Formats: sequence, structure tokens, C-alpha cells
Amino acid sequence: MKALVVVCDGLADRPVKSLGGKTPLEAASTPNLDRLASRGITGIVDPVAPGIRAGSDTSHLAILGYDPCEVYTGRGPFEAAGMGIELHRGDIAWRCNFATVDENLIVMDRRAGRIEDTSRLIEALRDIRLPGVEVELASLAYRCALVFRGEGLSHRVGDTDPHTTGVKVHPAEPLEDTPEARRTARLLEEFTTRAYEILKDHEVNRERRRKNLPPANYLLTRGAGVVPDLESFHSRYGMTGACIATTAIIRGIARLAGMRVLRAEREYTARAKQALAALEEVDFLLMNIKEADEAGHDHSPEKKVEVIEAIDEMMAEFLEFVRDNYLVVMSDHTTPCSVGDHTGDVVPVLIAGPEVRTDTVVAFGERACAGGGLGRIRGLDLMPILLDLLNKTEKFGA
Amino acid sequence: MKALVVVCDGLADRPVKSLGGKTPLEAASTPNLDRLASRGITGIVDPVAPGIRAGSDTSHLAILGYDPCEVYTGRGPFEAAGMGIELHRGDIAWRCNFATVDENLIVMDRRAGRIEDTSRLIEALRDIRLPGVEVELASLAYRCALVFRGEGLSHRVGDTDPHTTGVKVHPAEPLEDTPEARRTARLLEEFTTRAYEILKDHEVNRERRRKNLPPANYLLTRGAGVVPDLESFHSRYGMTGACIATTAIIRGIARLAGMRVLRAEREYTARAKQALAALEEVDFLLMNIKEADEAGHDHSPEKKVEVIEAIDEMMAEFLEFVRDNYLVVMSDHTTPCSVGDHTGDVVPVLIAGPEVRTDTVVAFGERACAGGGLGRIRGLDLMPILLDLLNKTEKFGA
Repeated sequence: MKALVVVCDGLADRPVKSLGGKTPLEAASTPNLDRLASRGITGIVDPVAPGIRAGSDTSHLAILGYDPCEVYTGRGPFEAAGMGIELHRGDIAWRCNFATVDENLIVMDRRAGRIEDTSRLIEALRDIRLPGVEVELASLAYRCALVFRGEGLSHRVGDTDPHTTGVKVHPAEPLEDTPEARRTARLLEEFTTRAYEILKDHEVNRERRRKNLPPANYLLTRGAGVVPDLESFHSRYGMTGACIATTAIIRGIARLAGMRVLRAEREYTARAKQALAALEEVDFLLMNIKEADEAGHDHSPEKKVEVIEAIDEMMAEFLEFVRDNYLVVMSDHTTPCSVGDHTGDVVPVLIAGPEVRTDTVVAFGERACAGGGLGRIRGLDLMPILLDLLNKTEKFGA
Repeated sequence: MKALVVVCDGLADRPVKSLGGKTPLEAASTPNLDRLASRGITGIVDPVAPGIRAGSDTSHLAILGYDPCEVYTGRGPFEAAGMGIELHRGDIAWRCNFATVDENLIVMDRRAGRIEDTSRLIEALRDIRLPGVEVELASLAYRCALVFRGEGLSHRVGDTDPHTTGVKVHPAEPLEDTPEARRTARLLEEFTTRAYEILKDHEVNRERRRKNLPPANYLLTRGAGVVPDLESFHSRYGMTGACIATTAIIRGIARLAGMRVLRAEREYTARAKQALAALEEVDFLLMNIKEADEAGHDHSPEKKVEVIEAIDEMMAEFLEFVRDNYLVVMSDHTTPCSVGDHTGDVVPVLIAGPEVRTDTVVAFGERACAGGGLGRIRGLDLMPILLDLLNKTEKFGA
């Protein structure tokens, strides 16, 4: 028996007036999801805990069985892993943006005009040497990851990114009064200062100025975190695992858990076939589908309905799979179109497969699933429940 | 007000094809259980935690309010208590089998032909003296319990029972690199070696060989555990408690909790009357009914339906009781006939009594109870809920 967990990012929503008081998931036509809900057992999930607004990262960690309250100190490590940096336990990692600042270090553009190619800039930054610290860098367009490796470091350092334009870059500051945090802040300040010196007159940026494009002359850092020691998915569960995701951070979580990370097919049905093909080789596949979340962030219930109906079509590919295997479909958090960001509402879940205790729920929706046979569970409960259905659980006692 | 908790061992199941997709509990005719569900409040219970495959032992500990994650290190202590050995906190206890081995210590029969009387063999083994350790023994047919009492011992010792025939007896080995574990393993090895010397030519076994019966010439040990310091049921809850169970381990748990243990009447209705009579004297009675679990282990849904219908008949005896007292009926874990062993699915529960908030559930079944007013709770939640209904709970705050 294999297991496929499809996480529809930000799928869940709140009632939307323009949809007659329905949520996008309730308003969308979803014959396949409804069929899976009928054949399966449903419920509602607190991704982390009731009312907690989970990020996609903390929620996916919980879904994979890693307690985010233990392993998550910041987004940096997962982003860095997603960009392909080989991380070691204890590394300090940041998410960064190539940004545009003026001569007074006032942020003019947090994404440097969404610059597409930063490979030469990254190469130039690799020349920076810091005392007692190994530095690693990777970038994908304007996004970048920065890693410090060495003894006596701390992730308790504030963002240098002011998260808005028109204000000055923040100095790197320790968030606690320890030698490690003070040292890390000093080193980060030194790094960003020297990065600015290298970037401001770099040929790439001189060229951008000539073309009237904002120069990528500053590296804004945020989301400092310490790389956790995640027990590998394989050693933890005795199953081989893979992940299909377009988002760097989800790919990073899977990488840190030692899972295979596959490049997602663009088109949904192709991606579903890709998942089934991957499951010929691995025992467990996590698939993240990003688009519903983007519709939520864009305050667009109509777009969200559209995305959901496309996801539903894709689900037809799994109807055969659930005869002998287990499929989980859920959302990682709620992204209400009214709010345009994550909220702490519960999310719907369905588990379909040969031995589930079906319930009376015949539609996959936020409110329908609240009456389901799983009741209200937490993200961290999912793997134990799934492992039990897969018959991979040891008895506790006799 | 009194409380009766009836735990139907392994009652819960998964949908069974030969029963038209119903579980045995759903397929069985259970007018009395359904009546109790209608008059009571229902719900689903994770005996230990979602997806965790509870043993009967860990589940009963949780139901009685003792956290198995704190007090349970192995089955040995509960088995030994169930066999009547007076245990002290810190004792190391094993479950043992009298087994048959050949001259190369290859296990031929793990139960020595299910030998019925081992009292003379146990008496002979009492002569074994170990340095610095007091040894206790008890047996019931081929089953036996072994206890080491003394300083500097550990339960982190592997099974000498290979759990199969045709292979050699395992040497006693420490499971961790501590002086205590190494010493305990050495002492256990010495004990089993000397036991073999005594048993192999014992008159009882010479007699068995003459009759062509397999000799009970070896003591296989397993399930080492350290005796926990269970606060007595009475001091914990301010109630006197008793237990009716046929299984040694459940009797052992009750004994370790300081509860009175009654010899179960064989016939169900007589056993129900016995429970009501006992409740004239004590405040709380735990009754374990073993047979549904056995049907699950035997992969027999038909037998399970039969057992459930017999249990239902017995429930008629309690319809009067719940006018003024509280009755809990539940399963301690799921034993699906398809799996033939425990799984981690939730189990149904009903609580009937004068002041429960009834719900809309009118049948006692796995899926019906998922819609009940208790929602999804854990085994450890049961005693606090019951104590509150019994009005025996202190206010937390003002």
C-alpha cells in the first residue's frame, strides 16, 4: 500500500458574500473531490493548534509529523534548503531579497524590479570572507538564501529588511542579550555592508542603471532560523518519501527530511500522472498545489473557484488509486479571500482508501467535513493515522 | 452515585465486506446498547492518541486515568501483578512461558504443549539464589511471571523468547549500555541457565517424556518492565474501586492500582449481576469483557457479531442502573477482523446516566458515535469526565 498526500495550499476559506455565503470550495463544482469524500472519511484539522495561523512551512512540517514548535525557528533554513544549499544542523540561515536602496540606504524597491538573473551578483558576493564563519549563498531571481556556518552563532537576530519601502534598511540587531546573538548580528552587519560595497558598482547594476532598471544593490535579510536536526522521513517511518512542489520552502522542508524532490509538471493532470508514476517507486508522496493560496492572497474568490475546479479535475486521476492505497486531500491553512492572508481556521481533510471507516459526509467542503468521522484532529495527528491505516505502526503495549 | 465502566475488549472494527460494509458492531442486533446510546451521550475515543495502536494494557491504564506514556515500560509488571505477586515500586518483572527446547536450546514448542500444571516446576525454581537480588515467581499453566527485586537493576533487557520456534533461545542482552542493564542481563542469563538445569531432568518432565508430551524445560522471558508507582485509585479519586476481568494483565493493572479484583462469573448475565452486587459495596467498577477481541484476532466477523449480541443481552441488566448512576460502555482498542490485531482507529464510547447531555445518536456503533456529543476525546479524558458527572471534582479557580 502506498500513500499520497495532496495539500492544496490555502484552499480553505470563509463564507464569501459574493458566492452567496458559500466558501469557494463549497461554491465550486467538485464532483471528484465529493466522490472521494463519500468513499472516504472526513474531518477538520487544526494545522498547528486551534486559532494558530499556520504558515505553509509550519503546517507542512506538522503534516509530515515534525512538530513545528520544536523544529521551526524561522523560515530561512527551509528556504535555503529549497534553493539547494546543503545544510548542516546548527547552520544559521536567512531568506534574502536583492533590493534597491538609495545612497542613504532608503529602500526604494524590495525586489530590485524583480530582477531575473542574479547569478553573477551571487558569484561576486562569494568573495566576502568573515572571521570564523563559512558563508553559503544561493539565489533564484531576486530571492536569495544566506547561510552562516560555524561555532558560537545564534538565529536570534532581527530582520534587516524593513518590510516596506521609503524607510532605511534596518541595522542587524541581536534579539537577545547573548554573546552568540551579538556576534551573529555583528557578522551579519559586516556581511550586508560589504555586500552593498560590492553590489553598488557591480557591472550588472551599472548596466541596469543604463537601462533605467533599479539596481540590485542591497541584500535585505529576514527569517533567520537555525537548521534543525530532522530525523529523516525514511528512518522515522520506514517508508521512502518524495515530494512534488513548486514552492521553494516546501521543497526545502522535503529536502531537510531527506525526501526526494521532483520538479513539478506544470499542468495539473500531467502532475497527477507524475505523482502516480513516482508512487511506483516510493511509498509516500507529498504533493503541494500552490495556486488556491495565491487566489486567496489576491482577494479573488472567483479565481479560487476556478483553481479548485481545475484541482478537482485532476483528482479524477486518483479514483483508481484509492482502491488499494491511501489518499489524503487537505488544505495546509485557511487563506480567506476577505483577509488576503492566512488565518487560524480549521481546514477540511479527507482520507480515502480500502479500510477507512466511511462517514455520512458526501461533499468535500469546510462545513461538510466538520461533521465527518475523523472529528477535529491536528496536523501532527495525520501521519500516525496514516501509518496505522498503512499497517506500519507498532503496538504500544500488548 | 456509582460508576460502572464496561470495556469490551477489541470490540471496535473496520467495515467488513462480508457484513455488507458494516462493522460487526453495526451489523449485530444490539437493542440494549442502542437504547443506552439514545439515553446517553456518545463519542469517539483515541485510547492513547490518534493513530497509536494501543494494547489492552496501555488502553486500560489510560481509561483508569494513569498515563501509559509515564507508567508503562513493559507488560511484565502487570502480568506479574495479575498472577498475584505482591510487587514493589522498582521491581523488574517479566512475562514468561514454560517452553520446550532441544539439547541445542532450539525452541520446539513455545508453550510446552500447553502444560496445565506447573506448580511443582515453579517450586523447584524457587531454589535458585542470585547475588543481591530477591526472586519471585508465579505461574498459571504454561504462563509464568518472574520478578527481580533489588538495587541497581534495569528493565532495559531484551527478550530471551525468540517469539518463534525452530530457532535458538536468545541470550539475555542489555538494551542500553548502563551498568544496571548489563547486570540485569547477566542475572537473567544466570537465572534462565540454572532454571534449564533444574527443569530438564525434573521428575515432572521425565514423566511428560514417558507420556510423549513435550517437556517444560525452559523459561522464555519477554516484556521486561519496571513496576511503576501507581497512586492508588482510592487516594487519587476518593472512590473505592473494583475490577472484574478474566485477563491476567487487566487484573494486574487493577491490583497495581489498589483495586479489589473479583473472579469473573463465566456467564454474561451472571457477570452483570455480579457487577451490580459489587457496586453495592464499591463506588466504581471496571469490567473487562475479553471475547470480542478474540474474535477479531481470529479474523472472524461472524463470531464477533455473536459475541456482541451476547454482550448486548447482558446490557439489559444495566438499564435500571443508569437511572441514578453512570455507565460507560466502550472498546479499549480496535481489533479489525481484517487485520487480526489491534489498530489505531478511534473506538466508540457511550456514557449513560441521570445528568448527561444526550445527543442525537440512537445507535451504538463506530460511525454513529462519531457524530456524538462527546466529540473526539482521549482515553485519559474519561476519568475526569466521569468524576465530574459523579460530582467528585474540585473547581479549578473560583
